[in-house]
Amino acid sequence: MDSGRSSPASKDRILPGGSLIIAWQLKHKHVLVVGGGDVASGRLATVLSADATVTLVAPRDRLEPSTVATIKYHPHRVSYRDRMFKDTDLDEVAFVMVCIDDVDTSRRIVGLCRTRRIPVNAADIPALCDFYFGSQIRQGPLQIMVSTNGNGPRLAHIIRRRIEADLPQNAGDAILRVGHLRSRLRERAPGMLGAEVAHRMSWMSSVCEKWTLEELSLLDDHLAERLLDEGWEKNRTVPRFSSIGGVYPKHSSTKAIWQDPQWRYGFIAGALGGVAVAAVTCSLFLLRRRK
Amino acid sequence: MDSGRSSPASKDRILPGGSLIIAWQLKHKHVLVVGGGDVASGRLATVLSADATVTLVAPRDRLEPSTVATIKYHPHRVSYRDRMFKDTDLDEVAFVMVCIDDVDTSRRIVGLCRTRRIPVNAADIPALCDFYFGSQIRQGPLQIMVSTNGNGPRLAHIIRRRIEADLPQNAGDAILRVGHLRSRLRERAPGMLGAEVAHRMSWMSSVCEKWTLEELSLLDDHLAERLLDEGWEKNRTVPRFSSIGGVYPKHSSTKAIWQDPQWRYGFIAGALGGVAVAAVTCSLFLLRRRK
Repeated sequence: MDSGRSSPASKDRILPGGSLIIAWQLKHKHVLVVGGGDVASGRLATVLSADATVTLVAPRDRLEPSTVATIKYHPHRVSYRDRMFKDTDLDEVAFVMVCIDDVDTSRRIVGLCRTRRIPVNAADIPALCDFYFGSQIRQGPLQIMVSTNGNGPRLAHIIRRRIEADLPQNAGDAILRVGHLRSRLRERAPGMLGAEVAHRMSWMSSVCEKWTLEELSLLDDHLAERLLDEGWEKNRTVPRFSSIGGVYPKHSSTKAIWQDPQWRYGFIAGALGGVAVAAVTCSLFLLRRRK
Repeated sequence: MDSGRSSPASKDRILPGGSLIIAWQLKHKHVLVVGGGDVASGRLATVLSADATVTLVAPRDRLEPSTVATIKYHPHRVSYRDRMFKDTDLDEVAFVMVCIDDVDTSRRIVGLCRTRRIPVNAADIPALCDFYFGSQIRQGPLQIMVSTNGNGPRLAHIIRRRIEADLPQNAGDAILRVGHLRSRLRERAPGMLGAEVAHRMSWMSSVCEKWTLEELSLLDDHLAERLLDEGWEKNRTVPRFSSIGGVYPKHSSTKAIWQDPQWRYGFIAGALGGVAVAAVTCSLFLLRRRK
């Protein structure tokens, strides 16, 4: 899936100075976090969200309350070692996050990781890092990452916030619903021949293109069955959302549209313009009547 | 920088089922691409954009024209081996992309990479991949990645396109300009004490918060000097863009605003509403006069 054909190929597309942005898979992998402060606590949350198991090494008096809380909350996935880092902590580890203030120790740990070919990030020492984190959005199965390649972390946050504000709140739901629709379709049309797979993929793509994200997020079981009955079964067409009984939650969508600043500015500009045009028209009309 | 404090820490922020999305650094690193088709050509462009050097292994008759073009265009960064994969191709390699149709060979190469602890992606075989690619945007120093964690690659593209359409065309410029402003500020106020660094960071943040991305993208050398003179030097304030002589390219911004569908819809809705309100007011006025 995601591992597939994403980047179009041409020499024109090559723009140096970038990073390789990738979605690393940590499921069933073990991560070492060195440190217990704010940054360590953030890293711990990040790798747990990526389904890793974790060992966290730091003396107890260096643990932030949030780190303590996460350790307690995930006893089966986080093992805690109440001491300083030892070289043997690197045994059987797939990924390392160093989050301590001691630059010399950070350098030493990074060196050990390099020898053992373990990917490593050392907080606040970009030159030592195999990889960086950008500013990230998570909404259910959806993840978005914004990186400025070190040119402006502040702007990365601003752009991330802007994307977050523009993103429909239900984009994550839309993705899950489309996943369910795909499973149902596969139950109805389980063929695995090239042409059959291509048919399914092409119809799924049409659904995603023709329905809005908002509509896809409202695709419940009942509606999915109707979409398959009225669309897939009838010449692989894609009926419109409303024509198969889809209903928008009116209240929330009006509110959402008004929260969109562009829409609001447009509305205000349009309203002022409309009033002005109408006022001028009426005045002309009145003047003509007076003559 | 990007390696720093990004993910807030709390057990509430942990939402399983995600990936670890990271910006991998390939500068001065060597990547092996196995295969020469469409996917290989895309991977080649991707890793060259991340400043890697590359070895591409594939018999000449399996090369796509775009692959041939990229190899020719970057003779110092791509070395080409006109043959099938050999185990020794993995020597001195930091990253491997397998892009061949032969699943058995793919599996074998992935196995060898695992033994040697080399990160590897095998196209179209998610189960074998250490990492996936999502749908990506690149605009100068800015990179954005959208992943649905395998739940809907089609929707990843749609969401990516939507973000791309909403993103100011000059966001990349804004990032570069802010980078230049930061360098100029460091020349004026080179102090490295904690408080001095904090002052600089706080002022830079205010500039990024108070100016729009469009305004930041117009921050040329002249305007940057004025911003430093009128802002930084005068009590670390942030003057408005227009008050220090910033000028919007009128034509393009009007056009850009009209291209924003939300603005357009809002404008039309507002105009209709405005006309309606004005019409009703005029009618009432006329009716009263008739009486």
